[in-house]
Amino acid sequence: DNKDEEAFFKLGDGFKVSMKMHAENRQRLIKAMHEKGAKTGTIVLKGGESLMRNDTDFEIIFRQESYFNWVFGVMEPDGFGTLSLSTGKATLFVPNVPIENEPWIGKMKPREDFKKQYEVDDVLFNEDLPQVASASDGPIYILDGVNTDSGSRSSPAEFDGMDKLTVDKTTLYSVIANCRVIKSALELELMRYVSDISSKAHVAVMRKVKAGMFEFQLEADFLHYIYFYGGCRHSAYTCICGCGPNAGTLHYGHAGAPNTRILKSTDIALLDMGGEYHCYTSDITISVPVSGKFTPNQKMIYEGVLNSVRAVEEAMKPGIEWPEMHRLASRKILEHLTTHGLLQGNVDDMVKVNLAKVFLPCGLGHLIGCDYHDVGGYLPGYPERIDEGPYGIKKLRTARTLEKGMVLTVEPGIYFIDSLLTMAKNDPNLNPFMVWDELDKFRTFGGVRIEDVVAVTDSGIENYTLVPRTVTEIEDVMAGKQWPPATDEGKW
Amino acid sequence: DNKDEEAFFKLGDGFKVSMKMHAENRQRLIKAMHEKGAKTGTIVLKGGESLMRNDTDFEIIFRQESYFNWVFGVMEPDGFGTLSLSTGKATLFVPNVPIENEPWIGKMKPREDFKKQYEVDDVLFNEDLPQVASASDGPIYILDGVNTDSGSRSSPAEFDGMDKLTVDKTTLYSVIANCRVIKSALELELMRYVSDISSKAHVAVMRKVKAGMFEFQLEADFLHYIYFYGGCRHSAYTCICGCGPNAGTLHYGHAGAPNTRILKSTDIALLDMGGEYHCYTSDITISVPVSGKFTPNQKMIYEGVLNSVRAVEEAMKPGIEWPEMHRLASRKILEHLTTHGLLQGNVDDMVKVNLAKVFLPCGLGHLIGCDYHDVGGYLPGYPERIDEGPYGIKKLRTARTLEKGMVLTVEPGIYFIDSLLTMAKNDPNLNPFMVWDELDKFRTFGGVRIEDVVAVTDSGIENYTLVPRTVTEIEDVMAGKQWPPATDEGKW
Ligand SMILES: [Mn+2]
Ligand SMILES: [Mn+2]
Repeated sequence: DNKDEEAFFKLGDGFKVSMKMHAENRQRLIKAMHEKGAKTGTIVLKGGESLMRNDTDFEIIFRQESYFNWVFGVMEPDGFGTLSLSTGKATLFVPNVPIENEPWIGKMKPREDFKKQYEVDDVLFNEDLPQVASASDGPIYILDGVNTDSGSRSSPAEFDGMDKLTVDKTTLYSVIANCRVIKSALELELMRYVSDISSKAHVAVMRKVKAGMFEFQLEADFLHYIYFYGGCRHSAYTCICGCGPNAGTLHYGHAGAPNTRILKSTDIALLDMGGEYHCYTSDITISVPVSGKFTPNQKMIYEGVLNSVRAVEEAMKPGIEWPEMHRLASRKILEHLTTHGLLQGNVDDMVKVNLAKVFLPCGLGHLIGCDYHDVGGYLPGYPERIDEGPYGIKKLRTARTLEKGMVLTVEPGIYFIDSLLTMAKNDPNLNPFMVWDELDKFRTFGGVRIEDVVAVTDSGIENYTLVPRTVTEIEDVMAGKQWPPATDEGKW
Repeated sequence: DNKDEEAFFKLGDGFKVSMKMHAENRQRLIKAMHEKGAKTGTIVLKGGESLMRNDTDFEIIFRQESYFNWVFGVMEPDGFGTLSLSTGKATLFVPNVPIENEPWIGKMKPREDFKKQYEVDDVLFNEDLPQVASASDGPIYILDGVNTDSGSRSSPAEFDGMDKLTVDKTTLYSVIANCRVIKSALELELMRYVSDISSKAHVAVMRKVKAGMFEFQLEADFLHYIYFYGGCRHSAYTCICGCGPNAGTLHYGHAGAPNTRILKSTDIALLDMGGEYHCYTSDITISVPVSGKFTPNQKMIYEGVLNSVRAVEEAMKPGIEWPEMHRLASRKILEHLTTHGLLQGNVDDMVKVNLAKVFLPCGLGHLIGCDYHDVGGYLPGYPERIDEGPYGIKKLRTARTLEKGMVLTVEPGIYFIDSLLTMAKNDPNLNPFMVWDELDKFRTFGGVRIEDVVAVTDSGIENYTLVPRTVTEIEDVMAGKQWPPATDEGKW
């Protein structure tokens, strides 16, 4: 054994993730807890549980619980972890698997091997947790809170004898969620990698898009690329391969609409797909013409969205409020649709009645990290959700002010969605702006989304997405031209 | 609308599954319930529930609950279904999704469309279920039982007002499980398809196997093939790509051992991977030399397993008891290892002490259908599990007598597993048969498994698996030779 060799995770030729990243996360967490006055005691976290499908013998392929991954980086299920707030000691608890299981699941790793693999201070069995917890020099801190994207409650650690201890279920959740919002330098490297391999996969898929294929075949190609070449066993979310009218369904691709369409040459292919590596995610959308050449209408809508992306990315930097970016993106879209005759009237007046929600009913983008819709969007002490009606800014997953180290998606779109167009037609505040003769030409257009993953830097952003974005770049790459170009003149 | 057009499921160029298959399943179920005396009343089944990962906004890609799929063939989550035992009327209940969700998930299908798509008699909303149930002309039959592979209890339907009705929770489970054991002609066609596309995927993977690749890249290639070419969005289980020593871990490939090895030219690649289409599964294993050429030792072990497979497949036909097939396979392996000097002594004596469990600790094979480890293995009134110690025949997932229409896997293997070899060394009943000088040469060999999916016919079996199986076939196909051969002289 080489004592100097650092522990890491790496799958295939994928990124080498140093376990120091998690050690740093733990130090950041302890520091933040100290700042809340929690200077003694023990954090007890429960790892993700292995899960069977219904009552069957089918085990859903395990993916670590995100908070546990952030703190410990452990890939095995059904463990626990503790972190002493006074000493910083990190202890991992693993299930004590009976030797009778060895023929099926392989040799039980000795605890010493776990210790080396994850660079923790100690490794014990799950049954040792009550004793460690009861020896705590202060309260037991448990993760208990509600995810503001899903509305679901976390699953707090439980163990024998817990009722006899002083348990604090309120402090940890927002402290750790807040730590996760700001990515460390090591996390940023990993985030950059996941978006890089996801970008490359998008480019490979883009080159294969052609009429007659099925949408799900683009999903198949993407998933294969990120896994085979990038070591991404999981995708960050179910692939959205909405072509033609389906591009207007924001979360298309689910089991009730599983990417079944045959691509037509007149379709836009809206492909929203992201890889995941060591539980860190990417989330990238491209919108390309199935024919390889944008029609004038496709180009017009596409460039409206691209202008919106670029305006936001030009403006982003520490201190900027995210809702202002949503408003900027929305205004850009209104201006563009007015310039091109789909809307009429004064853009300021459109803004007053929130006309943009008709075309952009969702939020501009979201924090991203160990979850693709990452935690920390609405924490106590930070700006609250803005409610200006059910669509638009209320859907923003955070209203925070940008800080260095945040990673977000920028994903404006222009969508033509029947129920929203009908809503606009029936709303006397909205209808006067709508030029129905023009808009009706787009009833089956679907939509366009462009989604980048960007990190906030000292003075602006770094774009982790590297896919063809201009109309010319897309047409060139679909026609076989080299990507990335030999010399890149673009800012991002 | 063409009234004559039959409803079906089809993804891409995959198999066209007629909804008549599910109508027949329902008729079979009603007939079987009538035979149990249940001639009036209503079966109420709960569909699978959509599932988020932990507290996050990540939705685990939905796959229908297997019983619900068998009865209704519905791909959407969160519904219910009823079946009248007196009239045969089949009613589907679907969630009433608010129009506000349309931008995200797409247009809510009108109930009339669901009715056409699934060829049921009526479609209502979930909130209508209590009224339909309370109008039942007899007891409400609910699915409540324990899966004998996983030990997990099914999740019985529940609805408002159920406590006021006569509810029978005991009859349905074994009747429906028993129906699932015998596949109809339409189900057999579908099962044949899934194993056919899975066989083709195995052949494609086999041709790519080479030293320097990672195990998980074989998984990536397989998953891509079945999805892109076969419309299989799901695999039947997590791919097991055990190469070299890992071939000796029966369920290798899980999150704690995720197919991470670099293939060496001296490895056997044991690849156990199966597709799934419309919730019907395949489960096929190949064991091939990474170098493309079997070494003498690899050939010897491989042919022992192949002889065992063939002896079983020759013997299988209606009336044969499955445990006898396990014993036959085990004996073949003992004979082979004795012939080749790894064991010594009288094979009858080896059988008496169950020596085969050292090399084949698992069962010979299992029923397969809507689950890869399919239901109905141990039902009341059928042979019980045989217990001759923790390894071997006790692990058989069924002890039934073969009947026409059953589909099973035949998957003997020879494995070299440290803990079991140690067990044999320490057991004075086993140790005398072991030739350690020879056996020790195989300590890091891993193992060989061959797994076919076969259907029991009137007089024997039909093998749904079509992959190279002899040493020559495998070496030829890995070297680029055509598959399947222009003329196939093999029996299977
Ligand atoms: Mn996104
Ligand atoms: Mn099997």
